Amino acid sequence: MSRAFNFSAGPATLPEPVLRQAQAEMLEFGNAGASIVELSHRGPEFIAVAQQTEADLRKLLSIPDDYAVIFTSGGATTIQALLPLNFAEAGQAADYVVTGHWGKTALKQAKPYVAANVAANGEAGGYRSIPARGEWHLSPDAAYVHITANETIHGVEFRDIPETGKVPLVGDFSSSIASEPLDIRKFGAIYAGAQKNLGPVGISVLIVDRELLERAGQPRADIFDYRSQLKAESMLNTPPSWNWYMLGLTVKWMLDEGGVAEFAARNARKAAVLYDVIDKSGGFYRNEVEAAVRSRMNVPFFLFDEALDKPFLKEAAAAGLISLKGHRALGGMRASIYNAMPEAGVQALADFMKDFQARNG
Amino acid sequence: MSRAFNFSAGPATLPEPVLRQAQAEMLEFGNAGASIVELSHRGPEFIAVAQQTEADLRKLLSIPDDYAVIFTSGGATTIQALLPLNFAEAGQAADYVVTGHWGKTALKQAKPYVAANVAANGEAGGYRSIPARGEWHLSPDAAYVHITANETIHGVEFRDIPETGKVPLVGDFSSSIASEPLDIRKFGAIYAGAQKNLGPVGISVLIVDRELLERAGQPRADIFDYRSQLKAESMLNTPPSWNWYMLGLTVKWMLDEGGVAEFAARNARKAAVLYDVIDKSGGFYRNEVEAAVRSRMNVPFFLFDEALDKPFLKEAAAAGLISLKGHRALGGMRASIYNAMPEAGVQALADFMKDFQARNG
Repeated sequence: MSRAFNFSAGPATLPEPVLRQAQAEMLEFGNAGASIVELSHRGPEFIAVAQQTEADLRKLLSIPDDYAVIFTSGGATTIQALLPLNFAEAGQAADYVVTGHWGKTALKQAKPYVAANVAANGEAGGYRSIPARGEWHLSPDAAYVHITANETIHGVEFRDIPETGKVPLVGDFSSSIASEPLDIRKFGAIYAGAQKNLGPVGISVLIVDRELLERAGQPRADIFDYRSQLKAESMLNTPPSWNWYMLGLTVKWMLDEGGVAEFAARNARKAAVLYDVIDKSGGFYRNEVEAAVRSRMNVPFFLFDEALDKPFLKEAAAAGLISLKGHRALGGMRASIYNAMPEAGVQALADFMKDFQARNG
Repeated sequence: MSRAFNFSAGPATLPEPVLRQAQAEMLEFGNAGASIVELSHRGPEFIAVAQQTEADLRKLLSIPDDYAVIFTSGGATTIQALLPLNFAEAGQAADYVVTGHWGKTALKQAKPYVAANVAANGEAGGYRSIPARGEWHLSPDAAYVHITANETIHGVEFRDIPETGKVPLVGDFSSSIASEPLDIRKFGAIYAGAQKNLGPVGISVLIVDRELLERAGQPRADIFDYRSQLKAESMLNTPPSWNWYMLGLTVKWMLDEGGVAEFAARNARKAAVLYDVIDKSGGFYRNEVEAAVRSRMNVPFFLFDEALDKPFLKEAAAAGLISLKGHRALGGMRASIYNAMPEAGVQALADFMKDFQARNG
């Protein structure tokens, strides 16, 4: 086939102009005599790429100067393990609000290092809602409060940023970073694997209040120390430079398209189109998440009859709509509609869903 | 310019056929409707890539079945921090043989977790030789003995594998893996960042005796546990899939070219050409490493007059020979001549060096 509309949850679809530029520069970057993936990370070409990427990301996300930006390898899961090592004392309390699979993962990674307290947990309700702030049991002396801003599998998203007083709020924004304007000052730190809404797989971003970096944390290897990483400008060791470059191209594309305000509008329209088809299907399609916290990025849905799952996926693929199979933890379908998914892709999926229902309902 | 001969120490030159294939597949991988960098790591396309890559790597390096292969992100430095966490008890002795900058880094990462003992150290001699095995002060109950098989900056390389009795030997092969046949059974584990001799930046490989994986190690996050990584087939979280794919293409290219025996022959010839020019230059060029342990991969050298460094680099670049500047720790020049550097590139450099001497000697 040619390029399909790819609804993969991550690694996810990239803007075609980004892929075309990467393709054009694969044999030689500019006039450098080599590809960016072959050039030293200490050389002038990559240093320029790295610096421009940070500048563009700061512009895109309106990152205040008193927040540091650290580019990391190892994915968001590694950041989840390093949060307590860097920002908590051994055995100190840290509060986790668990609203889906990824909140649970964050908790699991932290457990060896802190007294991890589940301040609120949506599991009993199948993660279909977000426990109200008033019901959270926070520890008064917690190192931080951790939330998962958008749950990629369960499709629930914080629509308001909770207040946590003097205790810094830390947010996993892996699947919703840059999807709408965000007041970063409300957080001690936010982080994201890039492979959903910032571009390529293989690199992650930590945006952290410089005050938090003054905490001593716990004994750890230098490579696990965010103070050292910042001092070395995220190049304490060889960084994933090609992935960094791709992130830079994607961020630049987002700026060129109009920035997060524009994407917030597009994303609201895209999500509305899909939820509308689901809600008006008379039960043929089903999304069980409480309407107020439905994710704008990941739309999980189920067909009324599981026997239709296979034909749905097969016919969708034939129509150029791929990667719609739901996560194995939930089954059913999932449409991930990050910034790089065009509105035309979502409309094509909506049309297909209506047509499929007409033929099978 | 067009593509130059690129002597970068890492990220380093890639085989042109690998880059061309990556370029051709950048918009669509096979018939998948999307690039491999956009496809789920759980999907059939990437699973096939991952499995083929491991099979090819096992073939290339003759990895015995009782050794596990784990693909990691975070670079060799992260592996250096995780070695003691996985394979030593807290406070247990671990022996480090330091023969250059990277041995020192390995030691630094391990120090928070083990009683790191410097069993031998080449620093006093400027890392120009490797302390003889008979002079090493090994701990009888060490968790492991760590060596750096090839020092990328200082250009010294173990030409024989030292005996360490019942204590497992662990080798950092970042800059010499796959450069010649190696008896992996002599090691408890070897590891390498891929960006020198295995292909792309952003992924590393740990090859480890499954017996070592039975050690309890120290309390650590699940993402830092190599048993968990192995169980999850190196996909405990989203792996750097594009980098993995590029590693696979590079390994396949090495197999197609004749495997490690063929590269060992080419690498011996390439190194001989350069050391010959240096040694016959009457002091115009200088390499101070003891002949018996000179690296076949990284050839550091100095011009007799530092004032000639800038003209040398400028004229070399104009002749299509790039990235020859030495590491800032040593100064001078360095030619990294990994598997992907063709013999023609080394010959061109040798010819340039002789010509430059004729004009400036």
